[in-house]
Amino acid sequence: MSVTAAQGFTAAGIAAGIKENGNPDLALVVNNGPRHAAAGVFTSNRVKAAPVLWSEQVLKGGEVSAVVLNSGGANACTGPKGFQDTHATAEKAAQVLPGHSAGEIAVASTGLIGVLLPMDRLLPGIGKAAAELSPYGGEKAAIAIKTTDTVHKTAVATGDGWTVGGMAKGAGMLAPGLATMLVVLTTDADVDGPGLDKALRDATRVTFDRVDSDGCMSTNDTVLLLASGASGVTPAHDEFADAVRTVCDDLARQLIGDAEGASKDIRIEVVNAASEDDAVEVGRSIARNNLLKCAIHGEDPNWGRVLSAIGTTRAAFEPDRLNVAINGVWVCRDGSVGEDRELVDMRYREVRITADLAAGPESAVIWANDLTADYVHENSAYSS
Amino acid sequence: MSVTAAQGFTAAGIAAGIKENGNPDLALVVNNGPRHAAAGVFTSNRVKAAPVLWSEQVLKGGEVSAVVLNSGGANACTGPKGFQDTHATAEKAAQVLPGHSAGEIAVASTGLIGVLLPMDRLLPGIGKAAAELSPYGGEKAAIAIKTTDTVHKTAVATGDGWTVGGMAKGAGMLAPGLATMLVVLTTDADVDGPGLDKALRDATRVTFDRVDSDGCMSTNDTVLLLASGASGVTPAHDEFADAVRTVCDDLARQLIGDAEGASKDIRIEVVNAASEDDAVEVGRSIARNNLLKCAIHGEDPNWGRVLSAIGTTRAAFEPDRLNVAINGVWVCRDGSVGEDRELVDMRYREVRITADLAAGPESAVIWANDLTADYVHENSAYSS
Repeated sequence: MSVTAAQGFTAAGIAAGIKENGNPDLALVVNNGPRHAAAGVFTSNRVKAAPVLWSEQVLKGGEVSAVVLNSGGANACTGPKGFQDTHATAEKAAQVLPGHSAGEIAVASTGLIGVLLPMDRLLPGIGKAAAELSPYGGEKAAIAIKTTDTVHKTAVATGDGWTVGGMAKGAGMLAPGLATMLVVLTTDADVDGPGLDKALRDATRVTFDRVDSDGCMSTNDTVLLLASGASGVTPAHDEFADAVRTVCDDLARQLIGDAEGASKDIRIEVVNAASEDDAVEVGRSIARNNLLKCAIHGEDPNWGRVLSAIGTTRAAFEPDRLNVAINGVWVCRDGSVGEDRELVDMRYREVRITADLAAGPESAVIWANDLTADYVHENSAYSS
Repeated sequence: MSVTAAQGFTAAGIAAGIKENGNPDLALVVNNGPRHAAAGVFTSNRVKAAPVLWSEQVLKGGEVSAVVLNSGGANACTGPKGFQDTHATAEKAAQVLPGHSAGEIAVASTGLIGVLLPMDRLLPGIGKAAAELSPYGGEKAAIAIKTTDTVHKTAVATGDGWTVGGMAKGAGMLAPGLATMLVVLTTDADVDGPGLDKALRDATRVTFDRVDSDGCMSTNDTVLLLASGASGVTPAHDEFADAVRTVCDDLARQLIGDAEGASKDIRIEVVNAASEDDAVEVGRSIARNNLLKCAIHGEDPNWGRVLSAIGTTRAAFEPDRLNVAINGVWVCRDGSVGEDRELVDMRYREVRITADLAAGPESAVIWANDLTADYVHENSAYSS
């Protein structure tokens, strides 16, 4: 279903020859209206890829009528030529999509940083994709944006007469301030730009922004939400926002579940924090601790590494009041040895760490992955 | 030579049975005076092991006459009982070292967090170590503090009639704000406490604090500098400080060279930064980027990952003015593709990354390691 679950959208995914192995690498998503409202959230990395710089400008215009996405190259750190290439991509799309202008066409790219895209293949690919646009093209589009993803990722939520659908890619370089991910969400609800923007920011803050696979922040992260208004229904904001968050949460979990080389999904819940910011800071510190990530991989309930990670933060807590549970067993009580660590069963893919700061009423959940030899292998050979 | 290179010191290293494999696990370093001046630097982790809390108190008294160090257990996150055990360790040492009081005896521990030490073995071990104290015992002491270290680490620098010597352990959990390391430095120079403190802090700030093997900060880091005054020489402060820094730098490089599972030592030099703080922040961000660390392991000059790491910092820079060299080849110029990456030769263990922020006159060097499957293996099985 993906981005074509909602009415008013067509999509396509094709092999343009950007990837040398011939796999699909170019996706096109078109909003056929009547409305072309849009919102976007982009990487907070200060080194931004050309398509991010371009799409941020497009979003300022308030309307997005189509998105061109490519895998096989990030077009990041590619200088003025890289930006010209993104511009040419939007112009080409405007040319093959009658009635659209380049200034309404967002572009997203993913792949290796620091390499120019093969425009002699990409530009003809846009024409080819336009010819294949279909209200059933959502799955093909989701497949075409994969890089090291082992599966394509889609999600759908429905309201009373309206739908939110989406697709995502991302399997490495996943970290807050957005994961290396490209996400396109579509809806046929009749929602204006400000309504989309609020729903999207509220959703990403507690979903994609709380995924931390490997602590690395990308140059290309892009999450777009496009509304066609084709259902003719304007839902209550909260109802709509819930649906957007549901789809984002679903896709974020799929990203963690497909993280490069991971064998465990780690759900880190920080409770009794003095503030939500404290909870998130502690959760991220735990999520990024390589020693702990290795221990989880080895099914070792090494809670000392959790405390060690908490101790590096500025959050409010007293060391001798900290409690830590792993899969429900409180292995650390009052900053010291708690229940028998032998009671912890870590055979399953999902591992739950609860860190109790005993400092207040706030909480947050961060999702992470273990660190494995497979992660090292995938990422030491990626560009070669 | 180690901690007994300087006059006035004796040391021993023995197997007390703390480690189940029977390897040496207890070291004793004694300052026989005439002076017992000392300075110490400890972990900045807010979760501090019992021996750190104890030794911080001892240092406040201004005199340290002996140090008991054990491997085989960190005595961290062990609650009131853990602190009592550290206290008992110092009391036992005072008992077997006539003329010394427990309040002058520092304690340092390393090993697994969250496990109580086997005091029934440790305490008799102190008596055994005291019986073996020798002015030639420095090497044995250095061997007894090893955990996953593959080699013991010692260094010496000499002045005109005086000497600074030292030993270190540490092979993982190496990060700024001190690595997981135990370091004891000794000198026969006649220097008072404030002089030692200044020399030690100035040295650690640019040596141990700029080592970042895996971004993980320990609960037990301890660096002690003891002065016996036995040479009768009081060197000029700068001369003495140079010697201390030389020994710290030597030991810090040995730590990086022996980091768990590492196949590459990565020297990250950040140049043309607006401030030294900016240079250090950028250097650490690069040092902690798992994707880059994997790429270095794969001998892949993936400079995009360097830019991506720089982009997550608050340092002053413009993305399109960044330059990056890997082993002397400027693969990134003005934030974009520079010299041919095929020119980069990464066959050797040392890899040099230069990040030019083009924002000012300051610089800093951070040392890190690559991320390897061996690191994952060592750390996923450490406690089991």
